[in-house]
Amino acid sequence: MSSAIECVKKIIPPYQDHLPTASVFAPSNIALIKYWGKRDETINLPVTDSISLGNYGSQATLSRAEQGDAVFLNTQPVDKHSEFFRRAQTFLSLFRPSPDFYFKLEATSNIPIAAGLASSASGFASITLALNVFFNWQLDLKALSILARLGSGSAARSVCPGFMHWHKGMALDGSDAYATRLDVTWPELRLGLLIFSDKPKEKSSRLAMKESVYTSPFYQVWPECVEKDLEQILPAIAARDFALLGSTAEQNALAMHACMQTSRPATVYTLPETMKMMHLVWKARRDGLPVYFTQDAGPNLKLLFEAKHLTDVKAHFPELVEVRPF
Amino acid sequence: MSSAIECVKKIIPPYQDHLPTASVFAPSNIALIKYWGKRDETINLPVTDSISLGNYGSQATLSRAEQGDAVFLNTQPVDKHSEFFRRAQTFLSLFRPSPDFYFKLEATSNIPIAAGLASSASGFASITLALNVFFNWQLDLKALSILARLGSGSAARSVCPGFMHWHKGMALDGSDAYATRLDVTWPELRLGLLIFSDKPKEKSSRLAMKESVYTSPFYQVWPECVEKDLEQILPAIAARDFALLGSTAEQNALAMHACMQTSRPATVYTLPETMKMMHLVWKARRDGLPVYFTQDAGPNLKLLFEAKHLTDVKAHFPELVEVRPF
Repeated sequence: MSSAIECVKKIIPPYQDHLPTASVFAPSNIALIKYWGKRDETINLPVTDSISLGNYGSQATLSRAEQGDAVFLNTQPVDKHSEFFRRAQTFLSLFRPSPDFYFKLEATSNIPIAAGLASSASGFASITLALNVFFNWQLDLKALSILARLGSGSAARSVCPGFMHWHKGMALDGSDAYATRLDVTWPELRLGLLIFSDKPKEKSSRLAMKESVYTSPFYQVWPECVEKDLEQILPAIAARDFALLGSTAEQNALAMHACMQTSRPATVYTLPETMKMMHLVWKARRDGLPVYFTQDAGPNLKLLFEAKHLTDVKAHFPELVEVRPF
Repeated sequence: MSSAIECVKKIIPPYQDHLPTASVFAPSNIALIKYWGKRDETINLPVTDSISLGNYGSQATLSRAEQGDAVFLNTQPVDKHSEFFRRAQTFLSLFRPSPDFYFKLEATSNIPIAAGLASSASGFASITLALNVFFNWQLDLKALSILARLGSGSAARSVCPGFMHWHKGMALDGSDAYATRLDVTWPELRLGLLIFSDKPKEKSSRLAMKESVYTSPFYQVWPECVEKDLEQILPAIAARDFALLGSTAEQNALAMHACMQTSRPATVYTLPETMKMMHLVWKARRDGLPVYFTQDAGPNLKLLFEAKHLTDVKAHFPELVEVRPF
């Protein structure tokens, strides 16, 4: 067991100087093979590998503040008593050169509100990338992925765009639990956001994940589910085999939700509208349209399809927000 | 591996005579611990024990027919090419004293249409009970449960009303795979049927069950789920502990559906309306009303509650059809 600060000290060079300001963008990401369950909750070590696809994201601008930390989100000051402020400050404190060194963080996001696009992933990844510039660390992607992970597990996958493979690793200090980029571009691949609920979740994904690990009888099978899904999706990505990519992502999401609904208490993020959309996806597929969904720890669905089917997919799902990952 | 006819020959006495007619009622049943998966598909041997509660049911009237078998359902003749006729005839053939002995079966049912109340269970149980009278076999409940099982697995639990415990058994010939009655009456216990879909299923539960057994990665855990749920629900029934009964039945149903949604292809009987009702149940419970649901291989839900809460439950679910199992 390592603390976050120990992990940081192994990676960043001694403090020398900082730039006046540093501003960096990091993508959010949608997991095609989900991250569900931690083997270490302190430094966010995952039970399994996961695979994601980057999309919208966040810009983080860092500078030095004079009197205490200050955080802005989309130009608005963030309440110092909020969870958002607390998490950002806890993360920034890992990198404070001295106790009297304060940060000003200006975060902006182009993520559609309530899209369920793991904004914390792009948030912590963009802060990490901004810190790297601000302090001139010149770290590689592996090191940046490890640092971002300390803020939010899935931020490990948000240090660059495209397909990312977060390796679960074996080391207790998390030194091998980082994401690497898959060397594949797939310009025809599309994500479609179906946003029908913007209500805050009743249960955080952090808690739901923990309850699955400790109480779902099916969770013991989840790691082997992921292994099998990885064995399918990695060749599917390499070969740009859309049907295999889509079907694997969809079955992986259904398996994650099966773990949730069998935890005690049961967690069911699926709403009637979610179920309606799922059945529409299955019907569209029976009618010959290659479209698949994935679902994260929330009610909204994300569709997977190819550019050539955009018109048909939009005909079935007029409210769809198209995302081009490449 | 035994054939159905071998199983029958071990149980029924040699043919002597028959009554002019025999008419017997058998209840349908709702499983609180589900039967999901067969270890032998020929003679319907289950992978796990299951627990059910009887309710509405079917009356079967048997007599001898002169020229070929004839089957009537609610006074209407049943088409000889239908699945219903075929299954009834296949079952009756197990008991034919000679090839030129034909049956007239008149079945009537008081099960609300499309209630998802396992009408085949009460159907085959009532035929079995009627055969027992018709041929004067004088068989005990154990033997009758085994015979009914040959028609439809869950019919093993429909040979008498009340709580029934179908034991999975070990024997290859199914001689220990029969249901026994739990010696508990619980007059305050209520079932509530929420019937919002009467469309025929797109996939039979027989096929969905088989796909779960052979393709769901979670199915390997299902038997131990059932074991744990049995360890909870048997004492709950004995002690008339409603909350424990309800929560166990609900979690068992969610686990069965988790097996279905992770089979390939996925089976999802849940409709948007199902999900709406589930969330209403959870909300009612958060608001202090002790109500639980169970769901079989179909979209409709069955509620569990106590008589004293009928008014409150009806306020939340005005469309509820109340059933008194005792």
